[in-house]
Amino acid sequence: MRPPFLLFLGAAPDIGWAKTASGLAQWRGEDCAGQYRLPGCGVDLGLPDMDFATARAAGVHTLVVGIANDGGFIVDAWVPHLVAALHAGLDLAAGLHERLADHPEIAAAARASGRSLLDLRHPDRSFRPGIGRKRPGKRLLTVGTDCAVGKKYTALSIEREMSGRGMAATFCPTGQTGIMITGRGVAIDSVVADFISGAAEWLSPAADPQHWHLIEGQGALLHPAYAGVTLGLVHGSQPDAIVVCHEAGRLELQGYEGDFACPSLRAALDVHVAAARLTNPAARGAGVSINTSALDEAAARAALRRAEDELGLPACDPVRWGAGNIVDHLVESF
Amino acid sequence: MRPPFLLFLGAAPDIGWAKTASGLAQWRGEDCAGQYRLPGCGVDLGLPDMDFATARAAGVHTLVVGIANDGGFIVDAWVPHLVAALHAGLDLAAGLHERLADHPEIAAAARASGRSLLDLRHPDRSFRPGIGRKRPGKRLLTVGTDCAVGKKYTALSIEREMSGRGMAATFCPTGQTGIMITGRGVAIDSVVADFISGAAEWLSPAADPQHWHLIEGQGALLHPAYAGVTLGLVHGSQPDAIVVCHEAGRLELQGYEGDFACPSLRAALDVHVAAARLTNPAARGAGVSINTSALDEAAARAALRRAEDELGLPACDPVRWGAGNIVDHLVESF
Repeated sequence: MRPPFLLFLGAAPDIGWAKTASGLAQWRGEDCAGQYRLPGCGVDLGLPDMDFATARAAGVHTLVVGIANDGGFIVDAWVPHLVAALHAGLDLAAGLHERLADHPEIAAAARASGRSLLDLRHPDRSFRPGIGRKRPGKRLLTVGTDCAVGKKYTALSIEREMSGRGMAATFCPTGQTGIMITGRGVAIDSVVADFISGAAEWLSPAADPQHWHLIEGQGALLHPAYAGVTLGLVHGSQPDAIVVCHEAGRLELQGYEGDFACPSLRAALDVHVAAARLTNPAARGAGVSINTSALDEAAARAALRRAEDELGLPACDPVRWGAGNIVDHLVESF
Repeated sequence: MRPPFLLFLGAAPDIGWAKTASGLAQWRGEDCAGQYRLPGCGVDLGLPDMDFATARAAGVHTLVVGIANDGGFIVDAWVPHLVAALHAGLDLAAGLHERLADHPEIAAAARASGRSLLDLRHPDRSFRPGIGRKRPGKRLLTVGTDCAVGKKYTALSIEREMSGRGMAATFCPTGQTGIMITGRGVAIDSVVADFISGAAEWLSPAADPQHWHLIEGQGALLHPAYAGVTLGLVHGSQPDAIVVCHEAGRLELQGYEGDFACPSLRAALDVHVAAARLTNPAARGAGVSINTSALDEAAARAALRRAEDELGLPACDPVRWGAGNIVDHLVESF
């Protein structure tokens, strides 16, 4: 995925739909030159709005589809814009289940313009079933009360904190945004179901006993759609340390309002730890990460204190105040 | 898959490796004309051994790869035989992850001979993420202490028993063998991981309140490789009734000996029921099914009694004595 990038936000109503774009802007901002929005878009990443000709003239190489919809499909209304981007001389990258290369109009435009299509959610290798045998090295997995609660940001923040302290640490991306940020990883929700845990084993191979693999969680075990992905990832990751992530104020599962309540931190942590013990009997909770962006500072500090009281583990908002207290705890207790 | 069939057993050392072939012979025996075995094969399904020319002369239309190896790949030693079958005028069907159509030599032989290749494990439609909302109709899911313990036979036996009593019941196949037996279903271990529960929801759609969907389980929640598949299937199936399956005498997970013990019936039932309650709070255990084929009659009866004492639910060996007592219990209590 050749930088600089123009981030395609479509008509995303809010930031939850544009988490791929916002993740790139947050963690790889130096490569993000602008944003491209359709009428009705409710997201502003604070980047310059650019049309395709302006972007190309400014040196942009790739239009990145920065939207993550349920099902991961190409929306019809996007197509004329994506086609125009190709004809304007931009490559196209996406992390959808539906492949750009499989869409007849987009594929034809890429051929006609000589530009490249990158489908980053599709593993470029095959996997074997999981083995389940413990590998050397330390592993931390972020898990959640729901999808889109900060699992990726938490793992990235812990990596940043550990690297800053000179610790050996590797962030392991498991979704399209993490792959776009790092250029590595596997979109674990896109592998063939039989190979979820095998792909997770491949993602964090045997390592030095003091090395930390920091594995981006996906989905949630108490989620009616994605728990299978999560369980395979938990089993294959063999985490020693589990950090449970949550968004302050979320009372129901996103997209499942009226049908599914958001579980408590305690319930979410316990179900993931219990599952993890199948392949690593030493698995245990290591911290809580709460997205407090909707709260003022006093309310945010109170939310972290409540989480610490509930679980007896350090709580952080990694974007607001870093993950230093969780890394302190890992150094002391793992 | 056009009958009659010749069943390809390769060099399968024991019946566990040939469960696709043995399932076809057991449940669709009238369409199975013979078996084809390589040197070292330790399985005999009691069918005539036939070479390809003899089979073709006897009217056989399709050579069915009846072997299920871990990873689901085409073994090199099979290839010359599969190519010869095509040239002898037989179609080829398989339920492997690796597609016959993707194997260069096999694909070339099919083109040259004008014969058909059927890859039955690959869904021929796409799915959406699960919704999690309760659908009308009754559902039973078979689950297991391990893989290959009788989940398919149990669901098929319960369907046979219910149909014999005039009850409305539909077996829902979730693996290659069930698909080969019935010509319907979805190989749930082969869908893209994000869509496991959505595919399971599609498999047993809304139905009459008195209708039973009898869903073939896959994998096991306490299995280090396949639990993700199982959990998505549990959530999407929304079972009212769960029957736990086991093979008498199995102490360790098959293929994971030395690393993973086989869980108790109680542990296996409880973990599946707890998971099922996310999408159906009324889910509960409905019976135990034990493959007692290695035991004499007295020992088999004792094993069933012990299982009934352990779980307080009816226990059966569906192949040996039918599933009548479980259906009695379903009629009375569900």
